[in-house]
Amino acid sequence: MNDAPLHWPSDRLQTLFGIEHPIIQAGMVWTSGWKLCAAAAKSGCLGMIGAGSMKPELLREHIQKTRGALMDGTPFAVNVPLLRGDVHELIQVCIDEQIRIVFTSAGNPALFTETLKKSGAVVVHVVPTAKLAKKCEERGVDAVVCEGTEAGGHNGVDEIPTFVLVPQVRDAVKIPVIAAGGITDGRGILAALALGADGVQIGTRFAATQESSSHERFKQAIVEAGETDTVLSLKKIGPTRMIKTPFARTSVEYEQRCATAEELQELLGRKREMRGMFEGDWEEGQFEAGMGSAMIRDVPTVESLVTRLLAEYREAQERIAGNRR
Amino acid sequence: MNDAPLHWPSDRLQTLFGIEHPIIQAGMVWTSGWKLCAAAAKSGCLGMIGAGSMKPELLREHIQKTRGALMDGTPFAVNVPLLRGDVHELIQVCIDEQIRIVFTSAGNPALFTETLKKSGAVVVHVVPTAKLAKKCEERGVDAVVCEGTEAGGHNGVDEIPTFVLVPQVRDAVKIPVIAAGGITDGRGILAALALGADGVQIGTRFAATQESSSHERFKQAIVEAGETDTVLSLKKIGPTRMIKTPFARTSVEYEQRCATAEELQELLGRKREMRGMFEGDWEEGQFEAGMGSAMIRDVPTVESLVTRLLAEYREAQERIAGNRR
Repeated sequence: MNDAPLHWPSDRLQTLFGIEHPIIQAGMVWTSGWKLCAAAAKSGCLGMIGAGSMKPELLREHIQKTRGALMDGTPFAVNVPLLRGDVHELIQVCIDEQIRIVFTSAGNPALFTETLKKSGAVVVHVVPTAKLAKKCEERGVDAVVCEGTEAGGHNGVDEIPTFVLVPQVRDAVKIPVIAAGGITDGRGILAALALGADGVQIGTRFAATQESSSHERFKQAIVEAGETDTVLSLKKIGPTRMIKTPFARTSVEYEQRCATAEELQELLGRKREMRGMFEGDWEEGQFEAGMGSAMIRDVPTVESLVTRLLAEYREAQERIAGNRR
Repeated sequence: MNDAPLHWPSDRLQTLFGIEHPIIQAGMVWTSGWKLCAAAAKSGCLGMIGAGSMKPELLREHIQKTRGALMDGTPFAVNVPLLRGDVHELIQVCIDEQIRIVFTSAGNPALFTETLKKSGAVVVHVVPTAKLAKKCEERGVDAVVCEGTEAGGHNGVDEIPTFVLVPQVRDAVKIPVIAAGGITDGRGILAALALGADGVQIGTRFAATQESSSHERFKQAIVEAGETDTVLSLKKIGPTRMIKTPFARTSVEYEQRCATAEELQELLGRKREMRGMFEGDWEEGQFEAGMGSAMIRDVPTVESLVTRLLAEYREAQERIAGNRR
């Protein structure tokens, strides 16, 4: 094992967040509670609580449990999807609890940036286009996550993949850029940095870990998925990438016969995400996961995963760098 | 300007094809005739004639003109799409003319691999999945191009992007892997190599060069295209990525109202590709181009483009490698 310090081409995220590695564990519904967040933070990454599936009081509980698990003031973040009806309350919990890093997603970056920044928080927004990245920068957002269409869960309507999204966002803004979508190993981390990112956000790979709070059946589905086993569906009511469960296949059939948004909404009903990812219901649930699932073959602890990612990154970097120097 | 030799992590394509840089100029209909092919070959890349829009006798003419332009036996390739009705004749021209490198695409790799290899040619097949890459290897194909859904023109039905396709193909086969789809600059080349490719195939970026035989209006459209200005359409009759021309927008409207394959075929009619890319008809033509168009801003000569790609590659590599050594 090589103990020489790793080289990262940019240290901007390390400085902005106070973390060791520019690797961010994505906030994910029914998946990234305090256990995953604390484990990622302990491994030198930015851990993140996904508030998207939490009521305000539950979010508060997870924040306090994370603090309890970390004890030493190690930084961590909270992700708040802005389309939540009670988003004001979730944001207020973040402010009350003095959360220092907030990731907002799925909404207008102008909504809470000023409020959050006044509270002393660093604000990061998730974007699917370079155009929105530029708008974020203009509105004072501190960094952007640009998320390619490979990513699991809610997704941009323009279906721009990571490989072409990252360099365009890099060229569009001066603030730090975090690449997301399809990153599951050290090769992917290096490729994202080659394209111009300052660091990466990793979702599905962290969902399939011991500390992830999602159901074992969901983790198993990620491990079993092959290269064509996810689909971007529900395009008329909010494009979502998911594993091809029976529900997902039905939604695709609906789309193939041009079902209306109302029909899709009725099919979707309520609590599909909970039934899938939290309860493990393969038949009726929704299993949100990215295309990178195809490269995920195990359910390690977060610590061993991060060790492996860093070793793979080093190996890829040495292969690319050669021995010219 | 840095004159130190470039480091490439793999030399397998350089050896297989007898070229200096592991950069392949893609075969493109109405775009890559003898001028583009010869210019790419002279610049140390693998130049390629795109036979997809040529009758057999025209292909022969382009092969002979390429040889005339190169004179010194510099290697070049021919791309033959296997869905052509007269594909046997095109293949026979390649054999008669002793073409040493043949890229086949859009069809069954088993069809002509043996015949071509018996003639002494190196055979490369273009694939949209790791599954088909494995099949190619089993059938004796010498290398594969794995083409992500970002790529212009005819495209895989599974819509797998470059970022997740390349590492899966790398892990699936031992033969050399060429990454394609969305690669327009040196950062993209480095990212593809980081993901495990031995080299890259570049299409749209070479289409917008002085030596490309396509119409100026088509080149202008590539230069003007932004991040959401291409679309993968005609999914029921053969998914094709194209610039959002009036025809492309109509085809998308047809798809949004669930038009049948027959209706789409009737809309497409005949010669849309020629009218678009060769005749420059913005209203009625089909302009096939990749998502990388958004990063293309000029129409340089091939020589200056290749010089720039190599300089960008070197710069990205130095940024990634750091000064640890």
